[in-house]
Amino acid sequence: MKRENFSEWYLKTIFDNELAEYGPIKGTIVFKPYGYRIWEKIQKYLDGEIKKLGGQNVYFPIFIPESFFNREKEHLEGFSPEVAVVSYAGGEELIEKLIVRPTSETIMYPIVAEWIKSYRDLPLIINQWTNVVRWEKRPFPFLRNTEFLWQEGHSFHSYHQDAKRMVFNALEMYTQTYQRYLGIYGIAGKKSASEKFAGALDTYTYEVLMPDGKALQGCTSHDLGQNFSKVFSLRFQDKGGKLKYVWQTSWGFTTRSIGALVAIHGDDKGLILPPTVSPYQIVIIPIIKKTDQRQIDQYIANLVKRLNNYDIYIDRSDKTPGYKFNYWEAKGVPLRIEIGISEVKNDIVTCFRRDNSQKFKLSHQELAKNLDDIFDEILNNLFLKSKKYTENNIYLIDDYALFKKVINRKRGFFKIFWCENYQCEKRIKDETKATSRCLPLNSPEEIGKCIVCGKSAKHRWLFAQSY
Amino acid sequence: MKRENFSEWYLKTIFDNELAEYGPIKGTIVFKPYGYRIWEKIQKYLDGEIKKLGGQNVYFPIFIPESFFNREKEHLEGFSPEVAVVSYAGGEELIEKLIVRPTSETIMYPIVAEWIKSYRDLPLIINQWTNVVRWEKRPFPFLRNTEFLWQEGHSFHSYHQDAKRMVFNALEMYTQTYQRYLGIYGIAGKKSASEKFAGALDTYTYEVLMPDGKALQGCTSHDLGQNFSKVFSLRFQDKGGKLKYVWQTSWGFTTRSIGALVAIHGDDKGLILPPTVSPYQIVIIPIIKKTDQRQIDQYIANLVKRLNNYDIYIDRSDKTPGYKFNYWEAKGVPLRIEIGISEVKNDIVTCFRRDNSQKFKLSHQELAKNLDDIFDEILNNLFLKSKKYTENNIYLIDDYALFKKVINRKRGFFKIFWCENYQCEKRIKDETKATSRCLPLNSPEEIGKCIVCGKSAKHRWLFAQSY
Repeated sequence: MKRENFSEWYLKTIFDNELAEYGPIKGTIVFKPYGYRIWEKIQKYLDGEIKKLGGQNVYFPIFIPESFFNREKEHLEGFSPEVAVVSYAGGEELIEKLIVRPTSETIMYPIVAEWIKSYRDLPLIINQWTNVVRWEKRPFPFLRNTEFLWQEGHSFHSYHQDAKRMVFNALEMYTQTYQRYLGIYGIAGKKSASEKFAGALDTYTYEVLMPDGKALQGCTSHDLGQNFSKVFSLRFQDKGGKLKYVWQTSWGFTTRSIGALVAIHGDDKGLILPPTVSPYQIVIIPIIKKTDQRQIDQYIANLVKRLNNYDIYIDRSDKTPGYKFNYWEAKGVPLRIEIGISEVKNDIVTCFRRDNSQKFKLSHQELAKNLDDIFDEILNNLFLKSKKYTENNIYLIDDYALFKKVINRKRGFFKIFWCENYQCEKRIKDETKATSRCLPLNSPEEIGKCIVCGKSAKHRWLFAQSY
Repeated sequence: MKRENFSEWYLKTIFDNELAEYGPIKGTIVFKPYGYRIWEKIQKYLDGEIKKLGGQNVYFPIFIPESFFNREKEHLEGFSPEVAVVSYAGGEELIEKLIVRPTSETIMYPIVAEWIKSYRDLPLIINQWTNVVRWEKRPFPFLRNTEFLWQEGHSFHSYHQDAKRMVFNALEMYTQTYQRYLGIYGIAGKKSASEKFAGALDTYTYEVLMPDGKALQGCTSHDLGQNFSKVFSLRFQDKGGKLKYVWQTSWGFTTRSIGALVAIHGDDKGLILPPTVSPYQIVIIPIIKKTDQRQIDQYIANLVKRLNNYDIYIDRSDKTPGYKFNYWEAKGVPLRIEIGISEVKNDIVTCFRRDNSQKFKLSHQELAKNLDDIFDEILNNLFLKSKKYTENNIYLIDDYALFKKVINRKRGFFKIFWCENYQCEKRIKDETKATSRCLPLNSPEEIGKCIVCGKSAKHRWLFAQSY
């Protein structure tokens, strides 16, 4: 069913397993406890990583005065079709309209301008965890929400070189988060001029191939150059006493990642969650017959005490074991442990891995000793699966007629030579709905011809239809 | 200066020490890294406590359709003067206006109604950490902001008795947070009918006496009864199969607590922060003369390794030790450690406590061993100070003319007999600006006469001017 009708499967998987439901306003969702818990885990992990990079958390107001929002022209043009506007508050019409932040550059930068006096104040790296609002024409839970949750990091540097390093550090942090924390393969690279962030010099991204063959932009990291610092007068005195404009970056990671997690790993039974991020890492199902209760409870209590570093749920409800097995498989819990009287007597617990449906038996001690390895293996297995799926769906095509034919038949990532001219990119979009996703990092310089116009092209760009 | 002009001292302390600054829209503030770090610590602590009570985190949309917001009449009346309204989004006028949440009852409850089918689904305890917007006529940083951050907990029960227990559990959690985490004394009690939350049966509060003699409502915990469940059709099937309305509570704790922290503990030198919540618990100031650098650095490295559970800042800047002492005292760091060559040679570090200006010397080992006790002592000392200040400013007065005279001369908490009739409460407010703050928990039943009308009154209520 995932294969036949991805959208339907995806919605059913999200709703049935209580990650989220629709909010009353089109495009909004409610994060239910099971879904929000995933976000809390991602937040905790990523917040630690941001702090390792020197980031300090802050909070700026959600309302941006229209006059601030309008100052960077490209930014304004890019975002104005999707903003929500407050014009009435506290019982009266406001003199100036307020933009509900779609992103915070234009409220942060005029204020941070006052924080920076000299090169000694740089680099400055700040981050905030917030809600943002972007009015979506075609909303889809987690992947395109009118309101979503994210972190947005912003950094300020003396030299362009330092800012560029930050852009790559953030991109690398996100890549690691996808690969080693969420087990999701993707391709990191640079956006084309038409696809970059409104107001940036360059935007970098991590593109994930979804099960329906469409690309998902998993995060972004922007080299803002001095575009904003010139508009908002972000200047510093360098070592020689000269006033210079700062170099800036911004980078964000959103609750869209939960959608990727569902889509990439799940199967027809439901969710499959990596142990890193699953609300429960282990579910214990007691198999109790009449007189065994005390012994089994005692055994479970000892086991749980031993595994007290892990998130464990013991399902003591009055449902049948079979029902519980199905329920927790659908919920994606990576490891199930069954404990009945024979397990207690032999001190051998029966384990079941959600990712590969493997059953195995281990003693209490072996389980405790090997659990981290088992979890690493699960995460790695999920990652390799998603890598294999992606690699199996990358097409190198050099003929435009063929490209148009193939992309209609089977979607995927298409690596094609493109001259980097907007006209050709636009023609591809108009004729195939595919957009340029990125120029993969470290792409070798090649001698090629643009698939559309035949003019010389140095690189194969990644094209795909996208979310 | 704190004593002479509290407001001026408070603003200077907040701004000079980089907790926050004004945002561009009246009533908003920007949380700077040092200020936001305090909120992060409070969040981490309180989130753990909420989870201990069985709370699960969720996230509901920030925009409430006007038709939802208007359904509970008392709630609507109470909040409509302070809401901000979105009527334009995504490039067009909206058909229905959207209220930016001032609190989330009216968006949550119609949705949670679908989550609850039977008594087995109860109790349900959910919580969210969000921003909220309430248009303030007289804003003041942290204490009354147009946009602030908070947690809002909501619970759903089969019986009124269970809901009431939750109301007190939440109040007790907040009381402990103020007393044992923030070191702030206050008085917990019940709000009068006119001061309770719009739509609640009863509201409970923790009232803190501020240095200017005004009361600050430190948190609220509401017994919502069945007011909202009847409006939003929150029903469950009880054990006998009968459909009944659920009993509800809601409770919140906000960034206002940071304002209390500044106001209660600070002095003319600046902030004084309890070790629980200070961004840095210890600042180490190396006192380096020429050739000692390597030995001192080595010694500090060992010490920091030993104290790796604590938040430590080593100030290696090129400022003088005297400058650094003043700087970190103003920042409120609870413990300063000075390390020069003589400290290294004798293995005796010089410590300075911010809360009582005590200096003392301890060996590396003694410090590590006693640090938790020292921190407990600091917290306790701050708490006792605030308790003493409050108790010294509680007045029991039974004569209305005297009350009016005293409250003009010196502000504080006034324990006065009140008949619980709105007319008398209103007359007090009109004539003295004082409002009823609460009926303290466990107030003994007494035989008294209302200070205004002379009719029989069973309790002394707490009255004060307030924020």
